[in-house]
Amino acid sequence: MFTILPIKGFIDQIDGFYCDGIHAGLKPNGNNDLGFIYTKEACNVQAIFTENRFQAAPLKHFQNYEKNFQTNFVLINSKNANALTGKKGIQDIDTLFSSLDFDLINPIMSSTGVIGNPLPLEKLINGAKSFDLNAKNGEELSKAIMTTDAYPKTCMYEVKLEDGSSFKIGAVAKGAGMINPNLATMLCFICTDAKVSSQDMKEALEVNSDSTFNAISVDGDTSTNDTVMLLANGKSNAYDKDAFFEALRLVMHDMAMLMVADGEGAKKVAAFEVINALSDEDAQIAAKALSNSLLVKTALFGEDPNFGRIASTIGASKIASDEEKLVISYNDVIVYNKGELCFTPEVEEKAGKVLQNDKYKITCDIGLGEGKFTAYGCDLGYKYVEINADYRT
Amino acid sequence: MFTILPIKGFIDQIDGFYCDGIHAGLKPNGNNDLGFIYTKEACNVQAIFTENRFQAAPLKHFQNYEKNFQTNFVLINSKNANALTGKKGIQDIDTLFSSLDFDLINPIMSSTGVIGNPLPLEKLINGAKSFDLNAKNGEELSKAIMTTDAYPKTCMYEVKLEDGSSFKIGAVAKGAGMINPNLATMLCFICTDAKVSSQDMKEALEVNSDSTFNAISVDGDTSTNDTVMLLANGKSNAYDKDAFFEALRLVMHDMAMLMVADGEGAKKVAAFEVINALSDEDAQIAAKALSNSLLVKTALFGEDPNFGRIASTIGASKIASDEEKLVISYNDVIVYNKGELCFTPEVEEKAGKVLQNDKYKITCDIGLGEGKFTAYGCDLGYKYVEINADYRT
Repeated sequence: MFTILPIKGFIDQIDGFYCDGIHAGLKPNGNNDLGFIYTKEACNVQAIFTENRFQAAPLKHFQNYEKNFQTNFVLINSKNANALTGKKGIQDIDTLFSSLDFDLINPIMSSTGVIGNPLPLEKLINGAKSFDLNAKNGEELSKAIMTTDAYPKTCMYEVKLEDGSSFKIGAVAKGAGMINPNLATMLCFICTDAKVSSQDMKEALEVNSDSTFNAISVDGDTSTNDTVMLLANGKSNAYDKDAFFEALRLVMHDMAMLMVADGEGAKKVAAFEVINALSDEDAQIAAKALSNSLLVKTALFGEDPNFGRIASTIGASKIASDEEKLVISYNDVIVYNKGELCFTPEVEEKAGKVLQNDKYKITCDIGLGEGKFTAYGCDLGYKYVEINADYRT
Repeated sequence: MFTILPIKGFIDQIDGFYCDGIHAGLKPNGNNDLGFIYTKEACNVQAIFTENRFQAAPLKHFQNYEKNFQTNFVLINSKNANALTGKKGIQDIDTLFSSLDFDLINPIMSSTGVIGNPLPLEKLINGAKSFDLNAKNGEELSKAIMTTDAYPKTCMYEVKLEDGSSFKIGAVAKGAGMINPNLATMLCFICTDAKVSSQDMKEALEVNSDSTFNAISVDGDTSTNDTVMLLANGKSNAYDKDAFFEALRLVMHDMAMLMVADGEGAKKVAAFEVINALSDEDAQIAAKALSNSLLVKTALFGEDPNFGRIASTIGASKIASDEEKLVISYNDVIVYNKGELCFTPEVEEKAGKVLQNDKYKITCDIGLGEGKFTAYGCDLGYKYVEINADYRT
């Protein structure tokens, strides 16, 4: 048995992890735009990257290291994605690291921001040179990696094992606006002092992706920079596979939900639960189609129980379905029942009230099998347009 | 040789076609909501319908007739889609037609509006009973089929053949807001007095779909009611296959472009031209991904030459591509050139000026083959959210 307890604070709570964020002059408003994660001893590191065909330079730089390499330094900047920058983009990262006097082991870079511009090397080098590697300022780091995020994203857990030992695991992330289909970049750095092997780290990341980050972003249809990175320094000497997998799942779920809730002006989070589909795959296709539909998202914004848009989106997703078996409900209010008209004014009023909440569940019972999947989405309103109409400036 | 001339007016210009639109009490604002197309002699009719799994009742009703049937009456209503209404939805159509005293041959219904509500039969019957089948009021019909359209959509051509004979072809349509991924319904009724066979009608519709309606809507990812219907009464006794196919292509292209331009608040129309892709299929996937990207659409709204979003969307579409071969331009302004940074302040200013136009072309040269496809899209601004947040009321 094990216990997982949420604790306060940032990743600097974890033994052996140091971090900070500063303003290096990339953001015009003086906000933090450069940060780092540093560990005294080298860490195991594993990452999941975007399936976009144009992976950004820092992702290629990472993958040039040997398999299962160790690192002691991650440098993260916002405002410039270093994507679509060709060979120069990778050379710039090497130039940057070779300009620093720190004792770096396989240093990693991670970037987010505007695509297609060269890195402002001088600002980055001057900024990084000013780092205090003994800093424990997780909050400043969390601000440094933000772009269109309305707030910093973090979570922390302590895991107590049966033998009395314990480890910590936590994350800092950025990402807003429903990653897919908007292609907004998601960066998530998960740190732990668990004594976990590279092999288990890799497996745990993969196992937990489907129900967390992939439930908010369709596989592969992602930005040039999307990264989920897991760093483990082993300092706690504690480990239990089940406990670690479960704790990592919690961390990844928390961060995914924070991203959905921060949907570039979003006020509502909807769980799109598709059940009794012919297969889990069908359920996933339909659930993601719902969470990505512009018409569904604007109806949520308008608090309009327009179940026809839900049904039409399921039909358009082309999964196996039959309108005489489909049941749609908003929380426990059934609005469509197998083609028998049940959308009375009373039902409409009840359903409308559900949509006035900040969080609710929209369930589509396909009635054909046992497949299920839940995707998470948010509403889309005026603020989304405002944020994205002129993001670069 | 043949000549195709655009002419003024609505489909009532075509010999033997009668039409009108009235207010039957479905729209609360008193606007037209019910219309008809009638021909004295029965017409050949062919149609292309949505690939949505939940086809609306009128589509099923049509498909219950024998293959290559003839008709003399199409009844069209807006405000209620008669979709997701089960067997009752089809029965209602039969009830409606059997309540009318007109001499109807295989009457057809077509509906658009809110999904999941039963047809208001009494209003429809009373409205239809008041029709004057000798009316020639194409403009009133064009208004009756509108939902979120900002303006009625029509076009007319006269086709003069080498032997001195001639026929007319024209259309009335509704549809706005970039059909996919928004699932807004598109209805298009094309009428002609050409002496064309059912077989040629079917073939011509299919041949011309890809470069017209399918360039603004991804195959299959469509609403429950999407319909393109072609009616031919043969009264001109004139026909030439090449001339007819080309005239039909023009009509379908015109109507598709009118729908894109009326993009629920859209002010800009962009042609997304993908060239030199590995295959035509690849080009089509990428071009449609661009025309459907929320981030691209909001950048167009903001007149922001954010080519990174263009590139990232191509990468996310997973077609064969290489950032060192890709070239992106806005009209003739190259903003990304094979990874060599060319986005100088001067180029940025020029590109920004292109985006201030109402219409422009964004070209992506993939540099890998000879595949090409052009998709058409529009910008997405505040008005889109306003229109769709509470469409039902």
